[in-house]
Amino acid sequence: MVRSEDSLDTIDAEAVPEVVVQRLPLYVRVLSHFASAGIEVISSEQLGAHLQMTPAQIRKDLSYFGRFGKQGRGYDVGSLAMRLRSILGLDTQWNAGLIGVGRLGRAVVAYPGFQPEGFRIVAAFDADERLVGHEVGSMRVQKLAELEQTVRERDIKIGIVTVPATHAQDVINELVRAGIKAILNYAPIAPVVPPDVRVQGVDPVLALQSMTFYLKN
Amino acid sequence: MVRSEDSLDTIDAEAVPEVVVQRLPLYVRVLSHFASAGIEVISSEQLGAHLQMTPAQIRKDLSYFGRFGKQGRGYDVGSLAMRLRSILGLDTQWNAGLIGVGRLGRAVVAYPGFQPEGFRIVAAFDADERLVGHEVGSMRVQKLAELEQTVRERDIKIGIVTVPATHAQDVINELVRAGIKAILNYAPIAPVVPPDVRVQGVDPVLALQSMTFYLKN
Repeated sequence: MVRSEDSLDTIDAEAVPEVVVQRLPLYVRVLSHFASAGIEVISSEQLGAHLQMTPAQIRKDLSYFGRFGKQGRGYDVGSLAMRLRSILGLDTQWNAGLIGVGRLGRAVVAYPGFQPEGFRIVAAFDADERLVGHEVGSMRVQKLAELEQTVRERDIKIGIVTVPATHAQDVINELVRAGIKAILNYAPIAPVVPPDVRVQGVDPVLALQSMTFYLKN
Repeated sequence: MVRSEDSLDTIDAEAVPEVVVQRLPLYVRVLSHFASAGIEVISSEQLGAHLQMTPAQIRKDLSYFGRFGKQGRGYDVGSLAMRLRSILGLDTQWNAGLIGVGRLGRAVVAYPGFQPEGFRIVAAFDADERLVGHEVGSMRVQKLAELEQTVRERDIKIGIVTVPATHAQDVINELVRAGIKAILNYAPIAPVVPPDVRVQGVDPVLALQSMTFYLKN
């Protein structure tokens, strides 16, 4: 069996380039895909072909987390997937709170992709008093004033922002004040946050805009 | 007036790192934000604060596209925004075709953010014969067999994939066969495409998964 020879459980997060961290979930996804197809060992060439990366990039990315695989034999699909899931914290449940229960917010609450991956939206908030008390999913919409207490009580680690662009920075400030360190931002703004807070934007327009560069040039 | 001193209109797309290209739309967004606030000149420090980047990174990113700004004076907000919009191809209209008119596909068609940014969904397709002919937005759902001809007739440059994961690779192959070079992929897979085809994934789960790394470590 080829297996990880590394047994460190703490990673120096700051030493890993952010682009590498952002690729790790893709590795996990591709590895899971191979595992469910019954493939046990995979080369960096095969991984690279699926991730549109060179084998050297793959080896470099993985080298930040220890020594995986054996020269000329490739990676053990199952153990590499498990190790990366653990590094990414995907072997636990994460609770999220959502702010903004308009059309976008309701679509996000209804999105079926979160729960199977260990993400649960456990609270929903809106600044609009008229929406407070309404049902969204199986939640009662709460007022923003209850944010901090709810974050503490329900062990919420992730904030999901689905308010219009004009309100997004204010709402993100509220989340930061409530102690949230990870924010999934659907609003089309680049928010300002303290250095210890991570923001990931979900924005199809930004994705389109970086592709038109290649269509044009 | 501080203005771009570069007048090259062709960019060697392969010479620009992909991460830089992916940041350009964010620059445009932040610059537009400053422009609408009446700010005419901005420093790389100010830009950096809004983009969570160092001034040196900002200067390096922009250096791929010519010489902007003047030492000690900063960048002209309006002309830099206009130049970046042109580099990204955002000064024209782009037509897109969407495949998969289930719940996710209908939500994407209804998304109000595309049109103001110059992206128009002009055709919708589904492999399910029962959905063909139905109305989605103001479009009639077409069968997949009509894809190639429709791409040609309506000048479609972008494919949007909103089918389930199990069908996504097949549908992406169809788009590639029809001559599409830019694909916005909502399905949770890392598809395999030829090197001249760009795929951008829109996937909130991947975004969450790269943040739990920081929450954990």
